[in-house]
Amino acid sequence: MAKGFLYGGVRCGLKNKRRDVGVIYSEVPATSAGVFTRNVVRAACVDFSRRSVEGGVLRAIAVNSGNANCCTGVQGEVDCARTAEIAADALDVPAGQVAVASTGVIGQPLDMTKLERGVREACVHLQGDPSPFMEAILTTDLVEKQASAILGGGTIRGFAKGSGMIEPNMATLLGFIVTDLIVEREDLQRALREANEASFNCLTVDGDTSTNDMLFLMANGASGHRPTYPEFAHALATVCTDLARQVARDGEGATKLLEIVVRGTEDPRRVAKTIANSPLVKTAMFGCDPNWGRVLAAAGRSGVPFDPALVRLALIANDERHELFCRGEPTGFDPARVSADLKDDTVRIEFDAPGELEATVYTCDFGYGYVRINAEYHT
Amino acid sequence: MAKGFLYGGVRCGLKNKRRDVGVIYSEVPATSAGVFTRNVVRAACVDFSRRSVEGGVLRAIAVNSGNANCCTGVQGEVDCARTAEIAADALDVPAGQVAVASTGVIGQPLDMTKLERGVREACVHLQGDPSPFMEAILTTDLVEKQASAILGGGTIRGFAKGSGMIEPNMATLLGFIVTDLIVEREDLQRALREANEASFNCLTVDGDTSTNDMLFLMANGASGHRPTYPEFAHALATVCTDLARQVARDGEGATKLLEIVVRGTEDPRRVAKTIANSPLVKTAMFGCDPNWGRVLAAAGRSGVPFDPALVRLALIANDERHELFCRGEPTGFDPARVSADLKDDTVRIEFDAPGELEATVYTCDFGYGYVRINAEYHT
Repeated sequence: MAKGFLYGGVRCGLKNKRRDVGVIYSEVPATSAGVFTRNVVRAACVDFSRRSVEGGVLRAIAVNSGNANCCTGVQGEVDCARTAEIAADALDVPAGQVAVASTGVIGQPLDMTKLERGVREACVHLQGDPSPFMEAILTTDLVEKQASAILGGGTIRGFAKGSGMIEPNMATLLGFIVTDLIVEREDLQRALREANEASFNCLTVDGDTSTNDMLFLMANGASGHRPTYPEFAHALATVCTDLARQVARDGEGATKLLEIVVRGTEDPRRVAKTIANSPLVKTAMFGCDPNWGRVLAAAGRSGVPFDPALVRLALIANDERHELFCRGEPTGFDPARVSADLKDDTVRIEFDAPGELEATVYTCDFGYGYVRINAEYHT
Repeated sequence: MAKGFLYGGVRCGLKNKRRDVGVIYSEVPATSAGVFTRNVVRAACVDFSRRSVEGGVLRAIAVNSGNANCCTGVQGEVDCARTAEIAADALDVPAGQVAVASTGVIGQPLDMTKLERGVREACVHLQGDPSPFMEAILTTDLVEKQASAILGGGTIRGFAKGSGMIEPNMATLLGFIVTDLIVEREDLQRALREANEASFNCLTVDGDTSTNDMLFLMANGASGHRPTYPEFAHALATVCTDLARQVARDGEGATKLLEIVVRGTEDPRRVAKTIANSPLVKTAMFGCDPNWGRVLAAAGRSGVPFDPALVRLALIANDERHELFCRGEPTGFDPARVSADLKDDTVRIEFDAPGELEATVYTCDFGYGYVRINAEYHT
């Protein structure tokens, strides 16, 4: 566990059930970094927390689920700032060193009476065990997501929530990473940006972020260990990728994690994201259908040029590798056998074309559950 | 009806049921224009027909459904050219004046024995009634699509097929437009490109075209009437838009046609397409949920800048106009009443922001039917 960090999570009634208010607290000032949604429609907490992070030091992050406090006008900004003040007062830290994250329905004013009670209660029940915190940040998530890496005498520990579907739902993608390693602020921000690019930003298409998405990183140095930049960047990327895979696997209605690996072409990431976001590919995987034609057609409309005659397509599932398409034509694969292996809960789609670049994108399949969750949910 | 055009449609067995081979024939050489898929993975018939159209004159188009003859290598090119030769021979016209369109499964060689029989039979049963032809070009379509416009003494008549879902399925989007008006080739191609941009290309995101998509226009001048360019372009656009709306409405699993109208911003079409392709917006419409937050969040990630505080969002359904969002906050609309109106089979989403430009995009809602059709279909 990362030394010097305490966690709290309680229920204040913003959601019908489960805890809905969480707090992360660092016993000493922590160097901070953050990545924030690029959506032009942003919740008040996004701009507020960016300012807190840009201050360079964080002592705490207050999170609520059940209400995103987005599209709530000036009152939303007031309520966000007030939330930070409440946490700062309860923890006796400067309000400017508190970040705020909200997730849930949008367009509804926050019930500040409930939230204030919740934040104060969470702050007086801080503990080393993050379980209550992890529950408090969930919305449509079915499972809690955490990952960690040990580096010398220190630890990097991350928590995430998100329904990780084709688009992050109003449910939002939130990531909280803490470490007791010693890292300078510039390195911290640079490593977080790089790790985010290769992990959370590979869950969906570019800019496909919700109104409240945020990723935080706090480093309090409590371990006394100072890693090299490459060591730290690598370990952080491992944690973020682990979390991103967990988010994809927990996608709304998902039955499997899909890893899209594209090698070659001048923009493999764009090809991989176009494949990953194709509802036809996603529904085929849900149906355990080795439909290489849909994969190839999606790649073909990605805007990235390639020669289909030089493409090789393969599916890896159930520890079996199946070549489906080669030299412009389908191979003589056995659809029934491939389909049986596609029942696996993790499927890797490999697209190989000439070129040195490579990219991996994480997504999930697309079934009835997604429609149920998103059509039957009501405003 | 457009004078001098005859149609044929028969069943040769490429599909399990329904007719699967169709022919359009012009009694006199027709000036030709065409628009073709930009997908780098293309069926042989796309390049073949582009060459035929570029010849400037078409006498006939031979179409088969049930097999897209795509990713079938050199044999596919041979079979495509052979199909044109068979039609040319049966109709006694130059093979270079015959276009070919195929739609259906990909990666399977064409059964040329069946197809040859079908093409010859269709050519000897030509008639003025296009009904058999319209049936022959369908795949997962539930209904036939046709539209027409009368201009002076002449007629423009169009036929289309397509499942018009989020992405054109392998089912492909095909359009065939004939007119007995007199139109010069350059005007014909220009008018078709413009009409396609505002209609079929507004069904899905840019470049989001399948491996076989094609739109043909044949003008044989049989009416003796020569319209002005503006007259013709306007009438052609009307026909194409009518067809595009029919394709969207017939989207796989669709229960309603969605018209996304964006006024203002520097790129309203991009905003409209991002909204139209949001699975969250589509599932909300399927669930009759007036979820303005999803519409706003989709617009916000389109990459087109705008100030949410200056945006107005409205839904028009069941002849009622409901303002949902205004000046950065939701209006006090009655969700139950809006939801009741959203049961209508046509819903218009209006997004208003400062700016002079305007765009309309056509799509459909997104329900269980789409998952069923695309997950349970097997390669």
